Amino acid sequence: MINLTEVNIKKKSGSPISPKGFFACGLHIGLYESKKDFGILYSDTPASCAAVYTQSHFQAAPIHVTKKSIEQAKKIQAVVVNSAIANACTGEEGMENALEMRDLTAEALSIKSEQVAVASTGVIGQQLDMEKIRNGCKSIKLSNQDQAGEDFQEAILTTDLVTKTSCYEVEIDGEKVTLAGTAKGSGMIHPNMATMLSFISTDANIESNDLQSVLKEVVDQSFNQITVDGETSTNDMVLVMANGQAKNERLSPSHSQWTHFKETMKLVCQDLAKQIAKDGEGATKLVEVIVEEAFNHEEARILSKKIIGSNLVKTAIFGEDANWGRIVSTIGYSDIQVEPSKCKVYIGDTLVFKDGVGQNDFEQELTDYLKNKEVLIKVQLGLGNGYAQAWGCDLTYDYVKINASYRT
Amino acid sequence: MINLTEVNIKKKSGSPISPKGFFACGLHIGLYESKKDFGILYSDTPASCAAVYTQSHFQAAPIHVTKKSIEQAKKIQAVVVNSAIANACTGEEGMENALEMRDLTAEALSIKSEQVAVASTGVIGQQLDMEKIRNGCKSIKLSNQDQAGEDFQEAILTTDLVTKTSCYEVEIDGEKVTLAGTAKGSGMIHPNMATMLSFISTDANIESNDLQSVLKEVVDQSFNQITVDGETSTNDMVLVMANGQAKNERLSPSHSQWTHFKETMKLVCQDLAKQIAKDGEGATKLVEVIVEEAFNHEEARILSKKIIGSNLVKTAIFGEDANWGRIVSTIGYSDIQVEPSKCKVYIGDTLVFKDGVGQNDFEQELTDYLKNKEVLIKVQLGLGNGYAQAWGCDLTYDYVKINASYRT
Repeated sequence: MINLTEVNIKKKSGSPISPKGFFACGLHIGLYESKKDFGILYSDTPASCAAVYTQSHFQAAPIHVTKKSIEQAKKIQAVVVNSAIANACTGEEGMENALEMRDLTAEALSIKSEQVAVASTGVIGQQLDMEKIRNGCKSIKLSNQDQAGEDFQEAILTTDLVTKTSCYEVEIDGEKVTLAGTAKGSGMIHPNMATMLSFISTDANIESNDLQSVLKEVVDQSFNQITVDGETSTNDMVLVMANGQAKNERLSPSHSQWTHFKETMKLVCQDLAKQIAKDGEGATKLVEVIVEEAFNHEEARILSKKIIGSNLVKTAIFGEDANWGRIVSTIGYSDIQVEPSKCKVYIGDTLVFKDGVGQNDFEQELTDYLKNKEVLIKVQLGLGNGYAQAWGCDLTYDYVKINASYRT
Repeated sequence: MINLTEVNIKKKSGSPISPKGFFACGLHIGLYESKKDFGILYSDTPASCAAVYTQSHFQAAPIHVTKKSIEQAKKIQAVVVNSAIANACTGEEGMENALEMRDLTAEALSIKSEQVAVASTGVIGQQLDMEKIRNGCKSIKLSNQDQAGEDFQEAILTTDLVTKTSCYEVEIDGEKVTLAGTAKGSGMIHPNMATMLSFISTDANIESNDLQSVLKEVVDQSFNQITVDGETSTNDMVLVMANGQAKNERLSPSHSQWTHFKETMKLVCQDLAKQIAKDGEGATKLVEVIVEEAFNHEEARILSKKIIGSNLVKTAIFGEDANWGRIVSTIGYSDIQVEPSKCKVYIGDTLVFKDGVGQNDFEQELTDYLKNKEVLIKVQLGLGNGYAQAWGCDLTYDYVKINASYRT
């Protein structure tokens, strides 16, 4: 394990336009009443590109269009995003609209259609208001000033309360390489891509296929390890653009600093993933689950997600109740290998369960601990070296409120 | 398919003591502040017995004790139940307590220890207060009057708001055979047995192994098809006692009225399962999901459970919002075979989705429909003959309230 603090620097400020050659804008085109709802992220030179998508049977129109673009062009220069309407379950008309949105963006930016990726997020089953989209495309004004990055970050949000951003620098071949990203999440957050969009930019020099392998590996340890409500949406997408302007030698698995790049990408993605979990619909607390000593990594991943997704665990944390029985119950009904007598459960640093029974005398300690805004649950299964982390949030009155009246 | 209304009669009143030879009692022994919390169901002759249990890795002590009894005795005469404390994750001490509870009950009823089954439900990780249990066993007074059945039904409840009961009569070999049951549920209700206890009695003449095969088949179409919050508990159990006092010829798969008996058992179990779903923690509505035309029954079962378990579908129904996009999204991320273009979704009788797109002009119709206390969602996948029903409830503020403060 390399010591990452020696090789990279987390930037307090930063956005997807922090890497060299990236520009953005975020506009209000009227899909929402007042929030910005239309954005562009742009590289002034063609960028290697990698993406992972929702595994839903009902992939939305923009997903199909983006896949097509990336297959055709290999390198892209822009992504256009709208919020408020997901353009999912919208049939032929939806597909035509996504294509038109792509083509109008390309025209406005004087690039080829297939160099544009398209993303949408919002309500399923409604058609885009194309008059508004067309006006949006006519109004694109790109900038690399901080405000433009912030505007783009706002434009992609739906019920999110805050914008999400993460930016790291890492030195590769003596050159400063910047990786930065933004994301939107909130509800319907669950593995294998959730109602979640994330756009990551870097000025690293790397081919698309190597970028894809990094992204896939990193997503499994970040975005795919968060859950807000166990749902997966029709529109999820994580997209990375790498324009090579940092002028490092081309990164590939044989590059001596390959791991530095990969680990830095993981930091960006985990950082964004945690921000999504923390801003889950109605959430008051960020919950982290660590599973150690599972039979293998896959079983650790399954269990960590199961605990973080349990409504009973989530409500107990909202209630600041050290109800470890619910954690044990969730471990109990998982399909993975568990030997009750070997299993240990911690809340924070406090051992609450071992040898098949609850430990005593921790109530006051935990009552204090659970007042924190970030809560850690750790499970040691005593069976092997399997390890995984997962992130989620508590289940609150506001989650119900937001989701019982989303469309009204 | 036989017409069941011709062969059996649903009884408006009835309880597990309705079949011949059954007695019960329900007491308040002080585990809860005022609610009855200790109960006995008893047959005055040894009864064939079948049971299915939670599949949790952490099966509670009473589950182990009951399994042992049934293996040893084949026929049992009584089940003793307490609520408030689950006696789960309680180690050696918990096991000794469950055995003592069984032995004291046997002593009080002058039967053998292995003729007694034991069940507990409530908080995980606390030891039973054995002084109270011992006093309870000394105070057992069995009766076959209606009140005794009602007392037993109350004694098994935890956060349930109402007692559950179902009673059917069916004529077999010219004899009136009665099947009756009660159940408790509320939270942690999910397949493969959920925090759920159900006790079913019948005076049918049937061997234990045939009774077991009926129970297994029927549970998969009833109790295993309900979900309140996707959780499975450490203590779940469905137990059937059949004492043969109806004097029908012994039922077995070769008996000409075998199906009548099996279908009647299914009616009792589905009836109880629906009552559990309707009384889910904080629920205001019963939701039924029917999946038709799936590739096979198993895939229909998986999907129906997934829809009924979706937090986003559940909150939408609480909000009386015809947000069919969430149903489609849930179908979308299921692992079963789906062809978007063949899939149809109905809310009540209203077709809301077909050919990959939402149907229009149903908003007012559905706004009215969703005010009902019972809501039906039907999905037709257009792929085969797979069929399943599942039942659940909406997700409400009160669910959060109950579960954020369960122990306090």
